[in-house]
Amino acid sequence: MPDTKRNVFFLSDRTGITAETLGLSLLTQFDSIEFHHTILPFIDTCDKARHAVQKINRAAQQTTCQPLLFSTIINEKIRQIIATSNGVLFDLFATFISPLENELNRPSSTLVGRAHGRGQESHYKERIDAVNFALHNDDGASTHDYPAADVILLGVSRTGKTPTCLYLALQYGIKAANYPLTEEDMNSRHLPTLLAPYQNKLFALTINPLRLHEIREERLPNSRYASQAQCEHEVQSAENIFRHQRVAFLDTSSASIEEIATTLLQQCGLQRRLLG
Amino acid sequence: MPDTKRNVFFLSDRTGITAETLGLSLLTQFDSIEFHHTILPFIDTCDKARHAVQKINRAAQQTTCQPLLFSTIINEKIRQIIATSNGVLFDLFATFISPLENELNRPSSTLVGRAHGRGQESHYKERIDAVNFALHNDDGASTHDYPAADVILLGVSRTGKTPTCLYLALQYGIKAANYPLTEEDMNSRHLPTLLAPYQNKLFALTINPLRLHEIREERLPNSRYASQAQCEHEVQSAENIFRHQRVAFLDTSSASIEEIATTLLQQCGLQRRLLG
Repeated sequence: MPDTKRNVFFLSDRTGITAETLGLSLLTQFDSIEFHHTILPFIDTCDKARHAVQKINRAAQQTTCQPLLFSTIINEKIRQIIATSNGVLFDLFATFISPLENELNRPSSTLVGRAHGRGQESHYKERIDAVNFALHNDDGASTHDYPAADVILLGVSRTGKTPTCLYLALQYGIKAANYPLTEEDMNSRHLPTLLAPYQNKLFALTINPLRLHEIREERLPNSRYASQAQCEHEVQSAENIFRHQRVAFLDTSSASIEEIATTLLQQCGLQRRLLG
Repeated sequence: MPDTKRNVFFLSDRTGITAETLGLSLLTQFDSIEFHHTILPFIDTCDKARHAVQKINRAAQQTTCQPLLFSTIINEKIRQIIATSNGVLFDLFATFISPLENELNRPSSTLVGRAHGRGQESHYKERIDAVNFALHNDDGASTHDYPAADVILLGVSRTGKTPTCLYLALQYGIKAANYPLTEEDMNSRHLPTLLAPYQNKLFALTINPLRLHEIREERLPNSRYASQAQCEHEVQSAENIFRHQRVAFLDTSSASIEEIATTLLQQCGLQRRLLG
C-alpha cells in the first residue's frame, strides 16, 4: 500500500533552516493533509544535487503524488539539476531574486550560505557571550552583571524566564538576566531594592495560575509549591507588584518562546537582529 | 541629507521570524547595499496594518528609494491594506499559497500564526523539557540522565558544546548532554568508561588549536589553560581519542551554531523538526 502522506523536501546549500521555516509556515495552511518531511541540507555540489534528485525520485515512485520541494539553493547549476527531479519545485530563492535585482538595479552576488553561516566573526562572539551571560545570570544566580544586561526578566518560578533568556541570547545576542521573585519579595509587596537601579531594563512574565499549577505539578507533584492556592497567591502578588512598580508584563500562558521574545523586544524597544 | 541606507520592513501577523529569515537571506546577496531593517510583528488587525502603512510611508518620504517589504501576512484584508503603502512588496505568503492550493487541490485554511505560535501544547513542553535537560547535563554536571539523552557531545573546553546543546533543545526539542574531556581523560587516551554504554549517542566537536587559543585567551588571559601549547595538546589528544574510539567529530572553527546543529543531526540520524 502506498504511503498516504505527502512527501515534502526542504533543500538548501547550507542548513535548510530558511527553506524549512517558510515551507512549514505555508504547509500549516493545509492542516487536513499529512506531510512527511525530509531535510536535505548542504547541497553545495552537483554531485550532492544528483543524489538529492535520486532521493526525491524514489519518494515519488513510492506514492501517487509528486513530492513538494522547497528550495533556497542559490547556485544556478545546482538548481537546474534539482529542477530535473520528479517533484513540484517551490524555489524560494529564484522567485524573489530577479525582482530584487531589478528593484535594486544590480546583480546579486551568489555567495552561498550567508543566512545561517558563521558570517561575521563578531556575531558569533556576540551569541556565545550572550549565552554565557544568560547562564551566569539565570535564576537570580548573580546580580552584579546587571549593569551589562540588556533586559532583566522577572516572574515567579516556571513562567518561561530561562528559555526566553536563552532564546534571546542564541537568536539575537541579547544579554538577558532573569530574577525569580521570592516569597519574601512577594510578601513585601515591593521589588527588591537591588533591582531599583535597573528599572528601565525590567520586563516581567506572568501566567494563568491554573496553567502554572499544571506545570508545577509535573515537576513536584502534590507539593505546596505546585498547589493551586500557592500558584494563585504568587501570580496575584507578583502582578500587583508589577502594576504598582510599573513593570511591563506579558502573560505567557499560550505564547510560544518566539512570541514572548518578539513582544519583549518590541515593548522594551530593543534592537532585534537575527544573528543565526 | 537623506539617509543613504535602503529601508527594509519585515511584516507579519505573528513574530515576523519567517519574513525576516527569508528576507535577510535574499538581501545578503546584495552586499554592496546598506539596508536599514525594521520588524513589524503582530500585524493582525486592519488598524495595525494602517499604522504599518504610515510607518512605511514616512520612511519612503525620508529617502529617495521606496522601502522593500517582506511580508508573511496571511489575512487577505490586511494584505490589501499593506499593498496600498508606498513600498515594494515581496509577498512571501501569497506568492506560494495559490500554486500550493492548486497542487494540493484544496483551499488553504487561513489560520494565522501557526509557524511561530504556541501550536501544539506538547511541542512547548518538549522544548522546555529539552532546555532543562541541557541545563542539568551541561559540562558533565551530571551523567545519570544519559540514558534519556538523544545525543552526548564531547570535546575540550570552548569548542561550542553548550550553545549547541541549548540550540538543539530550543529549536528541535532534542535532549543533548555535554561532557567536557578532562586532562585525565586525555592522558588515559581513552574515553571514560562511564560513556561506554552510550557509544551510539556520542558526537564530538573539535576546533583549530590556534582558534581555541584565541577564544581561551579572552576568557583567561595568559593562563596555562589558554596557552597555545596546551590548546594544541588538548585538541590533538582529543582527536586521537575520537579517531581511536570511532566517535564522529566536527571542526567548529568556522561553523555557525546552526551549521553545527544541522551537521550533527544529519550525522547522528536524528529526526529534525522545527518546534518554534
